[in-house]
Amino acid sequence: MNYSKILKEVKAEVDLLELEGHIANYIPELAKVDPDRFGLHLQCIDGTHFDFGDSQMKFSIQSISKVLSMALAMKLEGVAMWERVDVEPSGNPFNSLIQLEHEHGIPRNPLINAGAIVIADILVSRLANPKVDFLTFVRKLAGSEEIDFDLKVAESEAKTGFTNRALANFLKANFNLKNEVEEVLDFYFHQCSIAMTCRELAETFMVFANHGCLLHNGERMLSASQTKRINAIMQTCGFYDEAGEFSFRVGLPGKSGVGGGIAAIHPQQYSVVVWSPPLNEKGNSAKGMAALELLTTKTGLSIF
Amino acid sequence: MNYSKILKEVKAEVDLLELEGHIANYIPELAKVDPDRFGLHLQCIDGTHFDFGDSQMKFSIQSISKVLSMALAMKLEGVAMWERVDVEPSGNPFNSLIQLEHEHGIPRNPLINAGAIVIADILVSRLANPKVDFLTFVRKLAGSEEIDFDLKVAESEAKTGFTNRALANFLKANFNLKNEVEEVLDFYFHQCSIAMTCRELAETFMVFANHGCLLHNGERMLSASQTKRINAIMQTCGFYDEAGEFSFRVGLPGKSGVGGGIAAIHPQQYSVVVWSPPLNEKGNSAKGMAALELLTTKTGLSIF
Amino acid sequence: MNYSKILKEVKAEVDLLELEGHIANYIPELAKVDPDRFGLHLQCIDGTHFDFGDSQMKFSIQSISKVLSMALAMKLEGVAMWERVDVEPSGNPFNSLIQLEHEHGIPRNPLINAGAIVIADILVSRLANPKVDFLTFVRKLAGSEEIDFDLKVAESEAKTGFTNRALANFLKANFNLKNEVEEVLDFYFHQCSIAMTCRELAETFMVFANHGCLLHNGERMLSASQTKRINAIMQTCGFYDEAGEFSFRVGLPGKSGVGGGIAAIHPQQYSVVVWSPPLNEKGNSAKGMAALELLTTKTGLSIF
Amino acid sequence: MNYSKILKEVKAEVDLLELEGHIANYIPELAKVDPDRFGLHLQCIDGTHFDFGDSQMKFSIQSISKVLSMALAMKLEGVAMWERVDVEPSGNPFNSLIQLEHEHGIPRNPLINAGAIVIADILVSRLANPKVDFLTFVRKLAGSEEIDFDLKVAESEAKTGFTNRALANFLKANFNLKNEVEEVLDFYFHQCSIAMTCRELAETFMVFANHGCLLHNGERMLSASQTKRINAIMQTCGFYDEAGEFSFRVGLPGKSGVGGGIAAIHPQQYSVVVWSPPLNEKGNSAKGMAALELLTTKTGLSIF
Repeated sequence: MNYSKILKEVKAEVDLLELEGHIANYIPELAKVDPDRFGLHLQCIDGTHFDFGDSQMKFSIQSISKVLSMALAMKLEGVAMWERVDVEPSGNPFNSLIQLEHEHGIPRNPLINAGAIVIADILVSRLANPKVDFLTFVRKLAGSEEIDFDLKVAESEAKTGFTNRALANFLKANFNLKNEVEEVLDFYFHQCSIAMTCRELAETFMVFANHGCLLHNGERMLSASQTKRINAIMQTCGFYDEAGEFSFRVGLPGKSGVGGGIAAIHPQQYSVVVWSPPLNEKGNSAKGMAALELLTTKTGLSIF
Repeated sequence: MNYSKILKEVKAEVDLLELEGHIANYIPELAKVDPDRFGLHLQCIDGTHFDFGDSQMKFSIQSISKVLSMALAMKLEGVAMWERVDVEPSGNPFNSLIQLEHEHGIPRNPLINAGAIVIADILVSRLANPKVDFLTFVRKLAGSEEIDFDLKVAESEAKTGFTNRALANFLKANFNLKNEVEEVLDFYFHQCSIAMTCRELAETFMVFANHGCLLHNGERMLSASQTKRINAIMQTCGFYDEAGEFSFRVGLPGKSGVGGGIAAIHPQQYSVVVWSPPLNEKGNSAKGMAALELLTTKTGLSIF
Repeated sequence: MNYSKILKEVKAEVDLLELEGHIANYIPELAKVDPDRFGLHLQCIDGTHFDFGDSQMKFSIQSISKVLSMALAMKLEGVAMWERVDVEPSGNPFNSLIQLEHEHGIPRNPLINAGAIVIADILVSRLANPKVDFLTFVRKLAGSEEIDFDLKVAESEAKTGFTNRALANFLKANFNLKNEVEEVLDFYFHQCSIAMTCRELAETFMVFANHGCLLHNGERMLSASQTKRINAIMQTCGFYDEAGEFSFRVGLPGKSGVGGGIAAIHPQQYSVVVWSPPLNEKGNSAKGMAALELLTTKTGLSIF
Repeated sequence: MNYSKILKEVKAEVDLLELEGHIANYIPELAKVDPDRFGLHLQCIDGTHFDFGDSQMKFSIQSISKVLSMALAMKLEGVAMWERVDVEPSGNPFNSLIQLEHEHGIPRNPLINAGAIVIADILVSRLANPKVDFLTFVRKLAGSEEIDFDLKVAESEAKTGFTNRALANFLKANFNLKNEVEEVLDFYFHQCSIAMTCRELAETFMVFANHGCLLHNGERMLSASQTKRINAIMQTCGFYDEAGEFSFRVGLPGKSGVGGGIAAIHPQQYSVVVWSPPLNEKGNSAKGMAALELLTTKTGLSIF
């Protein structure tokens, strides 16, 4: 597969598209990002790398971090965690309170905000130094010590995260939060604030394309079965109420964030991360969606 | 009308009923109340008083306070307040988040929790010393200085009021809370903690039976039109998702609280307050409902 | 009370209002009505009559018929009917399927479409000749033989009533319809098609203002208790999701129809019917609402 | 891969499981099936076949037919059909009216009942002889003339299908049904009544594992892109509100029916059909789910 040529075509075609999008502004700090940034990094299972544009620039991974916290919770908590969070698509926006009320405080899946807050609660319970230990886990997956929280972003969200505070309190009212609301939210806001480049994030997600093992040394981080489950959840729940559209157009397990990033993998083939801040009306990167659709069309490689 | 005889019959008949009910336990401090307490006080527009049982014992008025805060907000804010809270029955439990989400942060009415929190926000904005000034207003209506917050109850709810905290944060996320969440909740939890006897509360509610004027001196506290509106809202929204049942069985405007109290009025006839802590499954005093139904049946006086 | 003068003022003031409204067009036959028609008829408990405008012109009473079918079902079926339909406000549009699904086929109240279809099913079961017998009942209340179905309207709705057909089938799927769907709908569409003048309808509704007895001869049609219940249900549920607004502005039990009619009563005082076809966005007659609000303001008579 | 040995193990292990399940009884004719029937057929892309149990016995494919009607509609209508039906998971039971109301008559996806009824409407519009032509299409995919409607099942559902009739009428009320309700339902009930063996259905679904071409002669029935889309929709929407669970446990695109069948495919590897009538509480074959989970675990082949 000539990825180099294909990525060149993808960039050229996306650049011609006139996509409508807006920068996420509900977190003031995120609204400051340059809307014209656009980068992509693809790492193959054979270790080769391909990229274009701003692939070496840090961006806020936001909800993409939910895949990483879910993975760590699966390692630490095992199957018991599925009593506190389900694995079904939500059919509702990412921050919906409605299903949570109908379903008595059991979030639909770990990739909507309510579910990710339950996962954060599990990690706060399980980790000695939650924030430090989580960062250590992410750095290990990425194979890089250059990864850190963006404290301004974390602080900005702490000040304005009223919806997440509503969700956390509602979980607490339904006995599905063991720790203090503010402690869990502090962890959660930090988790979401992690800044990474496309390349770092592609390296991090490679573990999900590689049956749960680190690519560079083969160290097993997750069982094959856990990895399969994570990919299945990304496939059905990774794009809020656009999961079906993404599955339909792109055909890969993946996860988006309001920072404009999307990480996706093709099992045993590659991991890919694209970043462009303007979001479509469903909250996913408009250019990112288009780029990944072109990628799977041009490579002829989708999981279907 | 021989109220004395009628109340005697009401008490005797209710005492024979085997009603299932449970004490509200979501506020730990409220769970300590004696479930066998049962009192009623009726004050006629001519100033005569009738009562039975524990009518002189203080109890936590809880949500009944929402009528009083709504009345004060109407005085201070005028019709502008109806842009921030609607006047429709909710058709949902008192602490539901669902409608709030569907309706973009505009609570259905001022007598469900979300609506009362918006009202609390209005009062925090309008009053120089919100807690003190609100208490002064209630004391004036009651014609008594013996009325106060129960600080243990307020503190107990502050510690455990996760659902109200969820609602307040969701209102804030929807730009329908001007002040800080915790400041508004502090006021709200104090407001609900007010302790009154049946007699004190009946005197307080007399203003709604008397076209907005204090009975003892005729001083106008609310316009006739405001009073009509308050009564209409109590009629359609005063009993959570049992408003229709209450209207159907009792036929009076009224308001219940999880402390087991119910205050109701018959315009230009009387105000009546009943108290019995065990609640039916809809959250209204089981004996209280039965007593008021018997009262209107025996007097033949309902508004319909 | 100088009703003659008050009605003159009401008409003059409403005529000056620039109210937005649209004719109901989902039933093609109804869309043909002249939007400028405007009439009102008020009958006092002492038998005097007052009116203005097109009060002697027939219009399609539509949903106002639901009060009459509910009354007849209460006579025939007694309290058993409340196992099949509830008495709570719906908080949702009149033809909503949502609550019906959440609440397993038990409609919220008899005045929303789903509830009225259950009532129609009860009448089809109870009456020997449902359509004829229902008409006989209405004529008796009205004291007039000049009342009939409008077969064109009934037929028009039968052809286009897909939402009602959806509701009826859903009730059937939930075992809350005993007869055949089409038989029940045929009765229901006829019931709604009844054409009456403001005067005829005011005479008909007088029974609800007169404790259940016909005014001209005192014959008891409903018990006092049944009448109280009907009035309570009209108060809380008579105006779809504008019940609170009507209660708040007008303060009388009443019922509206998409034909532009509103019937309301003040117990032991009067019955009043107003008709103006253009509907506000909630589906209630815009001029009719305004006229009734002015009436209760000017007379100072509301139930609150 | 030694499929022969693996299937033997799968059968032995499933036979040991004590799974709770119940036969679908809402269609009376379906309730007559023998609950102990259990069969599986797997066809590899190289043309080899493997099976066990009652794999040669006809059963009612029911909702599995929705994949076939969607495929034919995609051929005939092209992308225009996606204006009338979405591709998102529903997060609700298969026959839910709620989302349909919230989303104004646009069903969430073609594999829930409302969506399949829209697809049926498209086919009724597009096909000269809808029932005959649809059967011809299915026979061509299956490579067999031995496939037919089960008229007793179709008739049984026509008599009792009140929920589907409710859905169709609601779609009609929302202008998302072009033909007459009864004509569309007649087609739909016939489509669902098709009886097939596990082997026949596995041969039929092979087209989705083979990039849209018939296996035996390579004839293209669907474009590669259409096939990818169908598989993506099966992956995210094929199991009602257990789509996530199936994706999580099995990791294959598939579709279940209340007759107890499940058809699934692994792109470019195999198609597999399992049949066991007792359904779990979500409406999917309990043994079928278990068998497919064991199959993908033992083969190590899932798409993730």
